[in-house]
Amino acid sequence: MNLAIDVASGEKPTEELVGGAIKSLFLNDDVNLILVGKEKSILRALSKLKYDRNRVDIKHTNQIIDMNESPAAGIKHKKSASVLIAARLVSNKEAEGFFSPGNTGATLAAALTEIGRLKGVMRPPLVSTLPKISGEFCMMDMGANVDCTPDYIAQFAVMGRVFAKRFLKIDNPRVGLLNIGEENSKGNAETKKFFERLEKLKKINFVGNVEPNDMLKSDLADVVIADGFNGNIVLKTMEGTASLMVNLLKTEIKKNPISIMGGLMMKPVFNSLRNQMSSDSVGSAILLGLNGGAFVGHGKTGGNGVKNAVLNMYNFLDAKINEKIAKELYDSGVKRRIF
Amino acid sequence: MNLAIDVASGEKPTEELVGGAIKSLFLNDDVNLILVGKEKSILRALSKLKYDRNRVDIKHTNQIIDMNESPAAGIKHKKSASVLIAARLVSNKEAEGFFSPGNTGATLAAALTEIGRLKGVMRPPLVSTLPKISGEFCMMDMGANVDCTPDYIAQFAVMGRVFAKRFLKIDNPRVGLLNIGEENSKGNAETKKFFERLEKLKKINFVGNVEPNDMLKSDLADVVIADGFNGNIVLKTMEGTASLMVNLLKTEIKKNPISIMGGLMMKPVFNSLRNQMSSDSVGSAILLGLNGGAFVGHGKTGGNGVKNAVLNMYNFLDAKINEKIAKELYDSGVKRRIF
Repeated sequence: MNLAIDVASGEKPTEELVGGAIKSLFLNDDVNLILVGKEKSILRALSKLKYDRNRVDIKHTNQIIDMNESPAAGIKHKKSASVLIAARLVSNKEAEGFFSPGNTGATLAAALTEIGRLKGVMRPPLVSTLPKISGEFCMMDMGANVDCTPDYIAQFAVMGRVFAKRFLKIDNPRVGLLNIGEENSKGNAETKKFFERLEKLKKINFVGNVEPNDMLKSDLADVVIADGFNGNIVLKTMEGTASLMVNLLKTEIKKNPISIMGGLMMKPVFNSLRNQMSSDSVGSAILLGLNGGAFVGHGKTGGNGVKNAVLNMYNFLDAKINEKIAKELYDSGVKRRIF
Repeated sequence: MNLAIDVASGEKPTEELVGGAIKSLFLNDDVNLILVGKEKSILRALSKLKYDRNRVDIKHTNQIIDMNESPAAGIKHKKSASVLIAARLVSNKEAEGFFSPGNTGATLAAALTEIGRLKGVMRPPLVSTLPKISGEFCMMDMGANVDCTPDYIAQFAVMGRVFAKRFLKIDNPRVGLLNIGEENSKGNAETKKFFERLEKLKKINFVGNVEPNDMLKSDLADVVIADGFNGNIVLKTMEGTASLMVNLLKTEIKKNPISIMGGLMMKPVFNSLRNQMSSDSVGSAILLGLNGGAFVGHGKTGGNGVKNAVLNMYNFLDAKINEKIAKELYDSGVKRRIF
């Protein structure tokens, strides 16, 4: 399976991203890579590594869309930006999926314009797997569609169910709606409309409203649905709280010698915690419902993040989730895009 | 200053709540307490404590509104529920403020119906002080008004500014709008309208959009404004993430003997962290813009939480924040309630 990796965007140097991508080759024999970026930088990074040359291709470009650039302007004016080339490899069927840790808006736009939506899909949602006390769950939309109608939300539920079944291997996944109370009547005007629509869906194991604290602390749902605004608020609040706590911990540890010693002894624990909460683990997200794989990484994605993204992308594409989504949207009776 | 404390609602036993309330007497000579709940239980708790009897009064009631009860039904049918009696003490001017750790909806409803809004206030917002890496900031609305108009949001900004100045002692506080991106054009349709309105406000140091991760990790704003739906989502996501991280830490610590030892040595650190992130510290919120003080506690509020609530309530009321809000709403030129 060919996968395209944009190693030019993102905050980390090309060398680190190439190194992470190459590591994935040793963990999955079926993966081949197309690295997109400055050929010189990529070759320099590769020259330090041992790997099977037949499994790695390079697509050269000098252009990137910056982190702070307007996605619309970038997509319009930089036709050979690395993220567009990576997405184009998917639309040309040279790759089955692409990954970029660059400008999120540009990555979403590149995926939508180059790869396009599956038949019937109204708005592709960004799905993330998130940690909870007992394992993991998935949540969508994490930020692709800030204003949603009940019809989009119904489609997200159908897509989320397929994702949870095939990617998280959960049988008859429980689908919940992000809300500020458990009771059916809770929420703002919009959420109440979402609830009404989800309640009517057949073939969905809808478990009602789920509060964000319970979603993380308990085991109430396998799929949590929200509009892209609220999903993004949750994602960024989680990130901020985790950073804040690590920082408070560091400050407290420094206050006395015994806890400094204790802190040193717990270094592996902190590293593991950092891994579980880091953008390398929770930062990457998949745009569901396209004619190919589109993986969006956090700008801070490092080598480990790219490695995980490649392996996850393989698992996602191997499970034929998008193909299954097209069928399920049809079978579920939700409103579909007809134009 | 007389303060009414509902020691009958909440998840913790009356004894613990009474104990916490009494502790506050030793930390502030100007506080007198009116404890509301079952007289027998209160007297039993008091009999074990040393304190100045002249500073504590009891209002007996057998009725409480349960955590899971409908607030509207509770307020309507249980006329002598502890939370209503506590609020009524404020409207009768027997107390300047009240605190309840019970059913949040019922506490808000009791405050609104018994104490009532200040002249001109459209919707009283719930304000919380939250930790950030460099100290603390305040955020509102944390859940009292799930559907907001730009006019409510403008009022929140005026009220938030007064609160930050007088309660957090911040000169010319920076007011930000909760959003999923920094740029002026970011957000969903509703947030864009909020932005437009806030931008036009005179006398407010509006610093634009603030993302929830940056709000916690950086030092961008002293007041963050959101509608009650998003504010509540943020609060509950913070709580869930903190719980999740503590749990992951515990699990990781148990994995090897060295980190178990390290963990023991760090016990004071964990305790301090728990205190900083616990519902006793971040869980209580103030309903701004009423004709008296209304403090809403987390159901899990324990003795320490009540003690902190009493001391905070004194500081809040002593700073004459509500009185100042009435004046500032008038001076700021925002739309005011005229009926």
